[in-house]
Amino acid sequence: MSALQFEIQATCRETGARAGLLHTAHGTIETPVFMPVGTQGTVKGLAPRDLVNDLDAKIILANTYHLYLRPGHERIERFGGLHRFMSWPRPILTDSGGFQVFSLDTLRKVTEEGVLFRSHLNGDAHFFSPESTVDVQLALGSDIMMVLDECLAYPATHHDALESMHRTINWARVGYKHYLQREKGRHCALFPIVQGSMYPDLRTACAEALLELDAAGYAIGGLSVGEPRDLSQEMVAVTAPLLPPDRPRYVMGVGMPEELPQYVSQGVDMMDCVLPTRNARNGYLFTSEGKVVIKQARYIEDEGPLDPACNCYTCRTFTRAYLRHLFQAGEILFSVLATLHNIRYFLDMMRGIRHAILVGKFPEYLRSFQTGSQARPLTES
Amino acid sequence: MSALQFEIQATCRETGARAGLLHTAHGTIETPVFMPVGTQGTVKGLAPRDLVNDLDAKIILANTYHLYLRPGHERIERFGGLHRFMSWPRPILTDSGGFQVFSLDTLRKVTEEGVLFRSHLNGDAHFFSPESTVDVQLALGSDIMMVLDECLAYPATHHDALESMHRTINWARVGYKHYLQREKGRHCALFPIVQGSMYPDLRTACAEALLELDAAGYAIGGLSVGEPRDLSQEMVAVTAPLLPPDRPRYVMGVGMPEELPQYVSQGVDMMDCVLPTRNARNGYLFTSEGKVVIKQARYIEDEGPLDPACNCYTCRTFTRAYLRHLFQAGEILFSVLATLHNIRYFLDMMRGIRHAILVGKFPEYLRSFQTGSQARPLTES
Repeated sequence: MSALQFEIQATCRETGARAGLLHTAHGTIETPVFMPVGTQGTVKGLAPRDLVNDLDAKIILANTYHLYLRPGHERIERFGGLHRFMSWPRPILTDSGGFQVFSLDTLRKVTEEGVLFRSHLNGDAHFFSPESTVDVQLALGSDIMMVLDECLAYPATHHDALESMHRTINWARVGYKHYLQREKGRHCALFPIVQGSMYPDLRTACAEALLELDAAGYAIGGLSVGEPRDLSQEMVAVTAPLLPPDRPRYVMGVGMPEELPQYVSQGVDMMDCVLPTRNARNGYLFTSEGKVVIKQARYIEDEGPLDPACNCYTCRTFTRAYLRHLFQAGEILFSVLATLHNIRYFLDMMRGIRHAILVGKFPEYLRSFQTGSQARPLTES
Repeated sequence: MSALQFEIQATCRETGARAGLLHTAHGTIETPVFMPVGTQGTVKGLAPRDLVNDLDAKIILANTYHLYLRPGHERIERFGGLHRFMSWPRPILTDSGGFQVFSLDTLRKVTEEGVLFRSHLNGDAHFFSPESTVDVQLALGSDIMMVLDECLAYPATHHDALESMHRTINWARVGYKHYLQREKGRHCALFPIVQGSMYPDLRTACAEALLELDAAGYAIGGLSVGEPRDLSQEMVAVTAPLLPPDRPRYVMGVGMPEELPQYVSQGVDMMDCVLPTRNARNGYLFTSEGKVVIKQARYIEDEGPLDPACNCYTCRTFTRAYLRHLFQAGEILFSVLATLHNIRYFLDMMRGIRHAILVGKFPEYLRSFQTGSQARPLTES
């Protein structure tokens, strides 16, 4: 009945972690999964064949706000949807645009009906409603869509967070109703988003209200907005257990590599973040030996691979010294190779986590990871 | 005896065109050949695997000036040379740095001993002599090196061009002598460069003087410096027949796709130009249907491939509309995909030219190309 079928393959005996398969119209996603971000219809610096052949990414995320403005969702719909437009055959998750809109300096007005904002490209006025963002995502042909939510900055008062939470719940109801009328036969899911700032009582109330929608999956939003990291973890710890155990749980916009196992241990199945891609372009690289800031002079004559434990094209082929040279020279190839590696690092970590859950060793994985004795995840045989 | 072995496989019965094999320590180059430019130790936007797997480029060019300044030729030598530093297993041709130095606004002084200049990176003073540029290129481990030459701007008076020609000849003698003392066992060639501005008598005199060096190959330089295109062709027509028929002839810094067959018809075996790579990044794409300026509104909804006659990854996979979107959005992937296609276009054209020579149909190729009935070269098999 649902557009998504979520099949849990293994659950951890000590934590909330689970490994599963999320079946969509464009293929199956092995969970827990980290989703690379493809903001404007491309994961910056990578071609679809890189994502498939080098990284075996099973799903990517695209940003509704950006694609709505340019090239326009109607144009993409005329091309048969975003999969075809960008030549990406696998599943796509789209956000609702809310996060970007609420990050704009040019945000104009939030009402019960939606949000009025100005384009960062040309200043034109636009309006997103819970219904219109569903329509935009349907036009994009997304496999997993998000409801419009209000994403509060941190910190927010309890009063503001309460009011905002009610708006998010209301928008979710309106958007979900619209989705049920429009989605027929399209094989796409719509996830409501739990908000509530950093207040456990609001997170709880919001989750409980959204459960009424009986959605195919649920997201936890409003994190990574400047709060301390333990607060993000705490909000997920409060919220995740309230969400249906037989549906995927998605924490939006996280996280650092060392946080991923923590979220998984709380029962989170899906995550995304611009960290690996953005940091790559800025020369911040994640490795099994820790962070590499490639511009540092220590790498000038470093003949070693970026990450000796990594089997990606970048690490198999080039030295740190060469990567540093490319970075210093401002070469495009640096962004390409660095992005390839950073995403691979995140995906390999998730594959290691998934493997540990499947073989019943996630508690050991988590302990060794926490003590730092295992900077690198277990790899599949 | 020579580091290069040039084997002529076929010569055209009506023109000076020939097809050959140029054997180097890092592999064999099928000629005539167009060499993609890898200025700073990377062909901008492409990884070595793209150059090998997608384009089958047999040789690339690297710029001595840039690598000398950053990361430094001594550093590259410690890494075992440029091939190893950039993970490029095939032949490399390096220029002498002269062209870049003479293009600098900060050029300080030219003497009989060499040229004093300031780095465009930090203003530091440096000196290139005919000997030192050989040493730098030896450190890089280039397969085909160039002598230091003085590259005059256009137009130049006959008096200035004569004086400059004598300096270039003198530098070639000094540089070649130094090369003969230094190159032993290194399997690298050094090409002298014919100068003489746009004066046929000077081109002739320069070529004749350089023949004394009995080099493994000769270059024709000082073109593409702002002169009308028919003048470039005329200078090559004057010079090429004077060069040894059993050695490769290399015209530096040319040209437009439509000019390549013309140069080949004059007996040119090697060419290079930044045109396909630089134009790609600026959204100017070469196709069998003519130039595509991808930012134009006409491509907004164009569902066709960039070039229907091209089999490159870009043309096989994406629409013009998507490429335009990437360009407008400033995405890195645009530069990658556009560069991949533009170089493929040049290399496929050269493969078509070579095939026509081998099967004895180059005159027909040339005629059909000139009349425009064959925008696309003959393809092999």
